[in-house]
Amino acid sequence: MSFSPAAFQRDFVQMSSIGATPGGGVERQAGSVADCQTRDWFRRWLSSNGFDVRLDAIGNQFGLLELTPGAPYVLVGSHLDSQPLGGKFDGAYGVLAAAFAAGRIAQEVAQGDIESPYNLCVVNWFNEEGSRFQPSMMGSAVFTGKLDLEAALQTTDLDGISVKTALDDVGHDSQYHGPDVALYGEVHIEQGRTLENSGRKVGLVDGTWAANKYTVVVHGEQSHTGATLMADRRDALLGAALTIAAVREVSDEFPAGQLHSSVSQLEVLPNSPVTIARQVTMNVDLRSPNEDVLQLATASFEARVPDVEAKASVKLVINRTHSWGVLSYPEQGVRLAQQAAEKLGLTYNRLKTVAGHDSTNMKDVVPTIMLFVPSVDGISHNEREHTRDEDALNGVDLLTEVTRSLMEGALLIEAD
Amino acid sequence: MSFSPAAFQRDFVQMSSIGATPGGGVERQAGSVADCQTRDWFRRWLSSNGFDVRLDAIGNQFGLLELTPGAPYVLVGSHLDSQPLGGKFDGAYGVLAAAFAAGRIAQEVAQGDIESPYNLCVVNWFNEEGSRFQPSMMGSAVFTGKLDLEAALQTTDLDGISVKTALDDVGHDSQYHGPDVALYGEVHIEQGRTLENSGRKVGLVDGTWAANKYTVVVHGEQSHTGATLMADRRDALLGAALTIAAVREVSDEFPAGQLHSSVSQLEVLPNSPVTIARQVTMNVDLRSPNEDVLQLATASFEARVPDVEAKASVKLVINRTHSWGVLSYPEQGVRLAQQAAEKLGLTYNRLKTVAGHDSTNMKDVVPTIMLFVPSVDGISHNEREHTRDEDALNGVDLLTEVTRSLMEGALLIEAD
Repeated sequence: MSFSPAAFQRDFVQMSSIGATPGGGVERQAGSVADCQTRDWFRRWLSSNGFDVRLDAIGNQFGLLELTPGAPYVLVGSHLDSQPLGGKFDGAYGVLAAAFAAGRIAQEVAQGDIESPYNLCVVNWFNEEGSRFQPSMMGSAVFTGKLDLEAALQTTDLDGISVKTALDDVGHDSQYHGPDVALYGEVHIEQGRTLENSGRKVGLVDGTWAANKYTVVVHGEQSHTGATLMADRRDALLGAALTIAAVREVSDEFPAGQLHSSVSQLEVLPNSPVTIARQVTMNVDLRSPNEDVLQLATASFEARVPDVEAKASVKLVINRTHSWGVLSYPEQGVRLAQQAAEKLGLTYNRLKTVAGHDSTNMKDVVPTIMLFVPSVDGISHNEREHTRDEDALNGVDLLTEVTRSLMEGALLIEAD
Repeated sequence: MSFSPAAFQRDFVQMSSIGATPGGGVERQAGSVADCQTRDWFRRWLSSNGFDVRLDAIGNQFGLLELTPGAPYVLVGSHLDSQPLGGKFDGAYGVLAAAFAAGRIAQEVAQGDIESPYNLCVVNWFNEEGSRFQPSMMGSAVFTGKLDLEAALQTTDLDGISVKTALDDVGHDSQYHGPDVALYGEVHIEQGRTLENSGRKVGLVDGTWAANKYTVVVHGEQSHTGATLMADRRDALLGAALTIAAVREVSDEFPAGQLHSSVSQLEVLPNSPVTIARQVTMNVDLRSPNEDVLQLATASFEARVPDVEAKASVKLVINRTHSWGVLSYPEQGVRLAQQAAEKLGLTYNRLKTVAGHDSTNMKDVVPTIMLFVPSVDGISHNEREHTRDEDALNGVDLLTEVTRSLMEGALLIEAD
């Protein structure tokens, strides 16, 4: 069992061939055949490297190494599912990095180089992406008690297939709810340009951007696209279009990097070429590293709604589905990660994550450390997503160092 | 066999119960179960009233009355298919009106009150609406040789089901291509407010609005909705939204009633809540009663494209899929309809149709008469679509009068 850089690169190439797309990415949406194949590949990898593989009720995949019977676990991992036509690094890199970090530490324990009060576990969280089944970060949300298991299982995709049905195919165990976890670590690609622009090698995540997420339903009225007088139209798709433009304009009010806004999912009814839409359902996503900015942006968005309603003769019903502030990762963990980076000679930035991660769920229940490696041109959720070999291997080394410290009780001691 | 006003109202209520929706409309998209049930109902109606029922290769349903063996046919009809959550009058009213007009004339022929050089036929054209299978007016387009039969049969809906597969269910006869038609008549609801606003009872259609229809593909790039810097985004959905707004702005440049514009169908890829859209495909529809206005509007739309592309960092690929000018219905036919209205004491308007109808295909191959009855508030492609009983019955009477004149050779004599 080798956990060398060469082995990592070989295994990552092999894993990335599952669900590979012509454009160099992968498509492995949660519960799909390709996701199932990736999970099978990872199960074999874990088993052949001495891990005990278990699935929990929501389909999270755990690779357990019981080193100290009955002790709680240090957990490291990320997710293997992807966006449609997604990149091969988003999530999957972090899972394999965690598996290698755990493998290395297990060897050190076996050789007597480390004594630990903990056991060690690798995790592949189910449905982090949320492209097929909402919400995203589903597996870690259920694990941390933030999302009800039954509600998650009953969630359906656009074809009406439930999470439960999908999991019956890819595997879950309704009787198991995962190991007793004391500490969590994760490495992920940055998906932005901060590290690249600053020339630093690794990112130490000390917080999340604040976010407000909405479902907006635009209510109009069906009518004939040709015959209906323009003044008589109540065009829900025009209302949606003006909303999308307004959401973009909100971000233009703030300096670059202060407010990210988007609309990316639309359902149009009846979506016929000769009938004005009666209803459009869409998402709206506002994010900021500054809670005051987010509040101003939210007010600006809401202030634009009456104008949209008047121009398109429609009504908007706005429901806030998720909202969180600028949340901190524990400072002791950031300092531990900083010491690990310094020991390895890796330059670093402290930064905030714009995207949600499974670690943002885990940090609310156990001390959690989140690490980033650079993304070329900041491209993500795209087949062209890329992280250079050197950067990927640095991340494995950094996570190994952090995992060793966690196993040795560094965070526990600091916390005292 | 009674073709009285009371019988018409009774049969229309019965027919409207098929595919009925809670909101008072019908949903009978072409080739659907409800369309099939309506066609079955109409087949039984025709058979029990002495018509010989035949289907052609594209699923047009003909009710033939051979009065003069070997003679060409006077054809009257419309379509029984509907939009999703459509109205019960659009098309279906015209089919039943045609059946009643033909039934009345057949009785007069049988009684020796009329001598005719023609036979008589009622038609239910397949897929006039085009909501499920494009293009619209498919049945009459194939019948008139404007659309290739094989191309039409291979057309698929969004679920990949072909017209051929749908027709294998609802019925067609690949060996039959319809009767030899000499003249065509159709009555339809106006779907606009011209008659209602003017207080006139019936409309005599003397032409069509000009139209330019496009498919627009917006090319962007997938990226993360949260992490991607706003300046780095190439958001295809933002590009689509700005295009929809631009299409609306074009119509605002012209006086009311001079330019109708719409976008009503969108396909978003990947349509995920956390991924900026890489591609959006949409329809764009520009219509005018004035060809010069349409040309100006088209130029205005095209002039707005570079701004959309710049603002959203996307590329638009625009394909014109349909285009027609202000086309005339034959003047002799309009005069014949005018005489019929005057004889019945019905006030009338000459007007142009904004919507396409099967008669717009038929008028290019045989002398064709198109009649309108009022739509309450101009509402159509909507469950609340309504035409008052009195107006509906006036339309049956007017079509009967027109059909009688056609059967008696009035148009033939006038044309000489």
